[in-house]
Amino acid sequence: MNVITIERKVLEKNDEIARQNRAMLEQRGILALNLVSSPGAGKTSIIERTLEQLGTELGVGVIEGDVQTDFDARRVARYHVPVIQIVTNGGCHLEARLVQDALSQMDLSGLDLLIIENVGNLVCPANYDLGEAMKVVVLSTTEGDDKPLKYPAMVRNASVMLLNKIDLVPYVNCNPAALKNNALQINPRLRIFETSCTTNAGIAEWCGWLREKGARKS
Amino acid sequence: MNVITIERKVLEKNDEIARQNRAMLEQRGILALNLVSSPGAGKTSIIERTLEQLGTELGVGVIEGDVQTDFDARRVARYHVPVIQIVTNGGCHLEARLVQDALSQMDLSGLDLLIIENVGNLVCPANYDLGEAMKVVVLSTTEGDDKPLKYPAMVRNASVMLLNKIDLVPYVNCNPAALKNNALQINPRLRIFETSCTTNAGIAEWCGWLREKGARKS
Repeated sequence: MNVITIERKVLEKNDEIARQNRAMLEQRGILALNLVSSPGAGKTSIIERTLEQLGTELGVGVIEGDVQTDFDARRVARYHVPVIQIVTNGGCHLEARLVQDALSQMDLSGLDLLIIENVGNLVCPANYDLGEAMKVVVLSTTEGDDKPLKYPAMVRNASVMLLNKIDLVPYVNCNPAALKNNALQINPRLRIFETSCTTNAGIAEWCGWLREKGARKS
Repeated sequence: MNVITIERKVLEKNDEIARQNRAMLEQRGILALNLVSSPGAGKTSIIERTLEQLGTELGVGVIEGDVQTDFDARRVARYHVPVIQIVTNGGCHLEARLVQDALSQMDLSGLDLLIIENVGNLVCPANYDLGEAMKVVVLSTTEGDDKPLKYPAMVRNASVMLLNKIDLVPYVNCNPAALKNNALQINPRLRIFETSCTTNAGIAEWCGWLREKGARKS
């Protein structure tokens, strides 16, 4: 028995299903985001603000991943978009198979943008491809400037970083320039937006960039 | 091949080493804490404030667990206490074996209190006994009131919750009473302290309670 070998096989199987998800989503012209962060960094709030900006213009679907509860799916459902809740029941990350199951339950016709909210965990979801077009990592100013260096895999695998809760900078020990510098040290190609779901700072820029990247009416 | 069986065997092996750690620590009269939280909730700052209160009165040792970097061990070393850094190199939690290795490198004579700072992750460390006397979960007011319900295993397995960054309540969407109520719904025996490492609120109470629980000069 060899745990390492099995882990590798689990990842290979995951990657195979992720490839299927990606091919299907690309074929339908749906831009898929895998939203990752620590617990409470603001993933669901980012989805809410994004739906306020893009929800009438585009067809948006949401998959919510949580260890427990359907709170996030209920929050998102108020925006009258298709949403599927995945409860991992203790599992620390989403897997491609769970996303494939969720997609099979969602009406994909008319969708332009799919947002997958992963489990709140800055470590494990880094290693699991779900078939997304890009990983979007949300870091909160309350977490401290050193986090990109302490959790490098997630920053390395992300295409975008949303530096969220930027409105709290006056009250917390955070130097946004230093934090961004640490992130770019790990991943020089990272696109960074400073956002606040309280003041709406940066949300228009973030949504404008999503349009550029292909989130458009098909 | 059966992944579930192997996981169970890994946990059984971990529990066996945890028992050895616990027996050794109890025999030496060392109170051991396993400090767990999301990234950036304030575990290292809690250790710093605790060392300021208890570091001259008691023999305190610290084991730092991080996915990457030795930043936290350097911060703690400024307090002139024995500190060992464990870098998990991508691993999402500490295990009893890693703590056993760290303890074998630490001079335990004269130690009364051992603080183990786990990897920043509110999911995976819940399942791994390190041989501690108690798990202490740090939740930050910035993370939102629903987190105990969304990450119940950690709250269920903890003896104490430090509701940290209590000074930020005026600036964030947090109702401390609701958050505490959610935590007590998961674990009615949870002892809760409201703390701030900026204003020092609650730190004296927390350290007083540690003395009651057996952190005393041996």
